[in-house]
Amino acid sequence: MKAPKYKVIIDYIKEQITNGIWPVGSRLPSQRDLAKQFGVNRSTIVTALDELAADGLVEGKLGMGTVVINNTWTLMRSAPPVNWNEQVGLGTHQASLSTVQAINLAEADENLIQLSKGELSKDLFPLEEMRAVLTKVGQELEPFGYEDPKGNPLLREAIAKYLNQKGIMVHASSILVVSGALQALHLISIGLLERESTVFLESPSYLYSLSTFQSAGMKLHGIPMDKEGIIPEMIEASHHSRKSVLYCHPNFHNPTGTLMGEKRRQQLLKLAESAQLPIIEDDVYGDLWLDSPPPSPIKSHDRHGNVLYLGSLSKSLNPGLRIGWIAGPEAVIDRLADLKMQTDYGSSSLSQRAAAEWLVSGLYEKHLLKVRKQLKVRRNAALEALEKHLSSFAEWDRPAGGFFIWVKMNSDISLPDLYRKALANGVLINPGRIYATQKMQHFRLSFANAPVEDIQKGIAILESLIEDC
Amino acid sequence: MKAPKYKVIIDYIKEQITNGIWPVGSRLPSQRDLAKQFGVNRSTIVTALDELAADGLVEGKLGMGTVVINNTWTLMRSAPPVNWNEQVGLGTHQASLSTVQAINLAEADENLIQLSKGELSKDLFPLEEMRAVLTKVGQELEPFGYEDPKGNPLLREAIAKYLNQKGIMVHASSILVVSGALQALHLISIGLLERESTVFLESPSYLYSLSTFQSAGMKLHGIPMDKEGIIPEMIEASHHSRKSVLYCHPNFHNPTGTLMGEKRRQQLLKLAESAQLPIIEDDVYGDLWLDSPPPSPIKSHDRHGNVLYLGSLSKSLNPGLRIGWIAGPEAVIDRLADLKMQTDYGSSSLSQRAAAEWLVSGLYEKHLLKVRKQLKVRRNAALEALEKHLSSFAEWDRPAGGFFIWVKMNSDISLPDLYRKALANGVLINPGRIYATQKMQHFRLSFANAPVEDIQKGIAILESLIEDC
Repeated sequence: MKAPKYKVIIDYIKEQITNGIWPVGSRLPSQRDLAKQFGVNRSTIVTALDELAADGLVEGKLGMGTVVINNTWTLMRSAPPVNWNEQVGLGTHQASLSTVQAINLAEADENLIQLSKGELSKDLFPLEEMRAVLTKVGQELEPFGYEDPKGNPLLREAIAKYLNQKGIMVHASSILVVSGALQALHLISIGLLERESTVFLESPSYLYSLSTFQSAGMKLHGIPMDKEGIIPEMIEASHHSRKSVLYCHPNFHNPTGTLMGEKRRQQLLKLAESAQLPIIEDDVYGDLWLDSPPPSPIKSHDRHGNVLYLGSLSKSLNPGLRIGWIAGPEAVIDRLADLKMQTDYGSSSLSQRAAAEWLVSGLYEKHLLKVRKQLKVRRNAALEALEKHLSSFAEWDRPAGGFFIWVKMNSDISLPDLYRKALANGVLINPGRIYATQKMQHFRLSFANAPVEDIQKGIAILESLIEDC
Repeated sequence: MKAPKYKVIIDYIKEQITNGIWPVGSRLPSQRDLAKQFGVNRSTIVTALDELAADGLVEGKLGMGTVVINNTWTLMRSAPPVNWNEQVGLGTHQASLSTVQAINLAEADENLIQLSKGELSKDLFPLEEMRAVLTKVGQELEPFGYEDPKGNPLLREAIAKYLNQKGIMVHASSILVVSGALQALHLISIGLLERESTVFLESPSYLYSLSTFQSAGMKLHGIPMDKEGIIPEMIEASHHSRKSVLYCHPNFHNPTGTLMGEKRRQQLLKLAESAQLPIIEDDVYGDLWLDSPPPSPIKSHDRHGNVLYLGSLSKSLNPGLRIGWIAGPEAVIDRLADLKMQTDYGSSSLSQRAAAEWLVSGLYEKHLLKVRKQLKVRRNAALEALEKHLSSFAEWDRPAGGFFIWVKMNSDISLPDLYRKALANGVLINPGRIYATQKMQHFRLSFANAPVEDIQKGIAILESLIEDC
């Protein structure tokens, strides 16, 4: 005879508590989540929790759900167990913003229409090619171990060649392979900048939704943008100390989609040279132009080693590879390579070999042709749907590449309301607030992830919600 | 007609300077390295450097070699370029110890006899199996993107099952996949511990050769060991503040090879419970027992969530995969997963899939059988050679597993001398000094990496050098 369902649940929860997986002080999953997990009604969960409470193991706490207050061992002895939970808030690095955490979680929900995710749709995953690459890598495999501190030499050669085509004349020795551009920023934050230094950046910027630099003790200083990108004069006006660096995103800026013009790039580089302000140029969307190729990277004009250039395969090919790069002066790259060794001993050998094969074989260039074509269809569909549904309530610019449209709602519409109601109605958008230090009337709409019909449907749902916001 | 060699070299160096790869202030490679790189005599390099110096681009500086002092652009204008080199020393994280950096570099030198490398020999690389795994992963590939914050679910299930066999009764939800145990330590250091907290650890410990915890502002506090491992009474005597944690390495400790007995493990766990001292249990060598299986991990007896357990495939299978794990209380794992997302957005999807296949298919267990057998042959050969060559000059214990023999030289022998002379004679050993805060009479000998004949030859060379030390 099978045990009744609620007994199974009790045993499961007791086991979690006993084995220290849910130590004293931790919160149980919500009743709804437990019901879902065991495929039972919520009432069955309530029965189980009541019994556990009667045993003195858990307690319902107002506003906190059900909390573990004892376990079989603490019931028998006096000393309270170590409370790791208390320690959870202590580290030098901050937890992500709660809205950002909520969005990260919601991005994993396959029932939602994803107008949020900055990730290519699974439809655009090059399955055949990836399989072929893995087979090739497997066939040609030789014994491997830890890689060079700067990364696999073949991959660095391939990246150097790829950058040369963009006018960035670097050798493999001034390239560091990283696990994506985010890791590049983490390494820069802990390895190159002093605490208390200032990071100038576009306002808004997706960097505000991360805590990379703030966690390492740096201040973000947002600089206004115009249609050409960040405004150099505004940096000059704010730049007093030597302890600063400029982070910018010239190609299809996240979240606004802005493309920086040729002249503005030159101005920034000149400013860097005259004001001794190093530049971190983030170019992860550069290959995803939709109308015409963007101007050359700032780095391609850099003759004094002022610019650290970041790139990645995450946006244009696949984020699961976790392969990106930093190009810059060799001494800086050496320092960052040492730091990378200290944090993770280098990126995956398999991923590095696969990435090299993608670049060397020409498959990457072919893949880009397909992706650009598809992204263009998606962007145009999104723009049409916006025109149809939101033209009386909002305005936006047409992005010339990348993943995002930056939609500004009329001032009488509450963005937090719109975000919440959209989520309740199955549509996930990113409120502009997470990319800035002040209130924003914008949201970021990604046309890269959801199927075209969903993009259209999602935007229609947004229209239907506006009256209530 | 081809340009003369020295012209080619001049053009190359000019290009490096002009493109900001070697910015003003940076050191050129040594004349010897340049000569090697271009396959020319050193005199050709001298000719090229003389011409560059005459142009005002480089200058020989006493004790620094040749330094870039100008570039074509700075010659024309007044403002000095940004000196990233100056910035290189500024970050919050420290550079690796110089001896450690030198050893890391020497470990890449294939002409040396590697009695240093803590990495399985290439002879033990399971080439056929790794190819088969890649082929399988390729065939079964489905579109992938960013993984779950805690790592690929299939891999976490496989790790849970593997840990269950060790008596660690965790579910996949309390496991975080990381890129090796070093990354686990980095995440713990920035995510769980306060600045100024104390990390108790074995003295000596390989952690002293890293800067992970010190860079994050923690103090290492070494505790003496006996034949059973770290001595609990000595921790108790030092433990005053709540802001501390115990890091330990019960199975085949690095660098001493010590195996902690069952009773000692229980004592440590009791101490953790009564003194509220969380334990980080590092078990990366646990699968590499050579005589008989080690006692169960401390974590397997943990009923209160006091222990964070670290494991990895790097030592027992391959470091290039960059796959390790942390198991612990769910709240702690959640926090560390958030931190991991902030630093690199997760580990490589390809590596995670390959690792899952290794574990699920049973290939990993089969591989361990082979590795143990081979390692045993290597250990025994190393012990015999030590007996033959060094028995009058040193003493050591027979390690029951892992990679290392901890050799204590007689007190009249200078260890720094021995290290330097060995290196000059083509043998790399790790002086004990890098694993401690004080002078050590030991060196660490790895029997995992070099071919058996090289281990024997290397130890014979050590004998021949002892008279001079």
